[in-house]
Amino acid sequence: MPRWESDAQGRLERAALELFEAQGFERTSVAQIARTAGLTERSFYRYFPDKREVLFAGNALETHLVAQVETADPGLTPMEALLTALETAEEIFRPREFLLRRVRVIAASPALAERDLIKLADIADALVRALARRGVESGTARFIVDVAIAVSRRATSRWLADPDAALSGLVAQTAAELREAVAPPAPTVG
Amino acid sequence: MPRWESDAQGRLERAALELFEAQGFERTSVAQIARTAGLTERSFYRYFPDKREVLFAGNALETHLVAQVETADPGLTPMEALLTALETAEEIFRPREFLLRRVRVIAASPALAERDLIKLADIADALVRALARRGVESGTARFIVDVAIAVSRRATSRWLADPDAALSGLVAQTAAELREAVAPPAPTVG
Repeated sequence: MPRWESDAQGRLERAALELFEAQGFERTSVAQIARTAGLTERSFYRYFPDKREVLFAGNALETHLVAQVETADPGLTPMEALLTALETAEEIFRPREFLLRRVRVIAASPALAERDLIKLADIADALVRALARRGVESGTARFIVDVAIAVSRRATSRWLADPDAALSGLVAQTAAELREAVAPPAPTVG
Repeated sequence: MPRWESDAQGRLERAALELFEAQGFERTSVAQIARTAGLTERSFYRYFPDKREVLFAGNALETHLVAQVETADPGLTPMEALLTALETAEEIFRPREFLLRRVRVIAASPALAERDLIKLADIADALVRALARRGVESGTARFIVDVAIAVSRRATSRWLADPDAALSGLVAQTAAELREAVAPPAPTVG
């Protein structure tokens, strides 16, 4: 059992997910989540600032990715450094079954879908700053981060759908598809 | 003078921009925007559902891009169809000086920055559906749209900074940089 399953934060996350699935995000209160997790409302706010945040695990993913980019081999291109970092996200992911349910709950609630967009934008901003610290010009850094996140979203969605796949292999496969998609048109043989 | 400058919607947009710049988004009311534009509050709500929406011009960009993708040459790849559509966005852009001020006002207000993210996500969803109608599988469509939007954001930001550039040339240049950024590593000569 992964470490997070046994701690209070994990219990709150799973309680929230169950309640959001059963009765919807809007009709679930922080008090209910805490009660279902066997904790007090006060404990809830020790881990999360509000109800929308409970499925977003604080800044764990952002912190992890930024650290990976900062310690990446200086010889890597910006895109390689980002993709290498994104390949390791599996290390801090929740179990796949939790994430699959989470994707459905987020898609069903506009409030959660908005928070998801904002979180992703925050992670992108942090990665742009991390690339800037490697000396990448900020406009270029923004562009490379946007593309790398597109690759990561595609690879992660495949990873969720395929219990036997490793994220790193799917990132590499998706990057190869990107090269294919943007290849210049083949010259027409006349 | 472009058509939009003379109509009520354009007057409301410019009044809002001026007030947001002068006193901030939070401290500006719909009544003030309407008054500054020489219109009634009731007229405001004929054009925009709320104060946050006034800088997002309804669904004009989305409608334009979807129509472009739907009528694109069937021989184009999905990426080519999207980039060709995005190159024409200039046709419905507001004047550059308005857009530059708009970017700064949005960046200064978390509420507007969130609406900007949501609008962009809505446009992306509409483009995914447009590609699906061209027969593109939905996972692939999502990925190609994410990448094309990254290219478009980069090209548009250059277009805003350079009064002499055409958007189409900047999209082509950015696509070329993307090819470069994702090129496989050159084999090491040993």
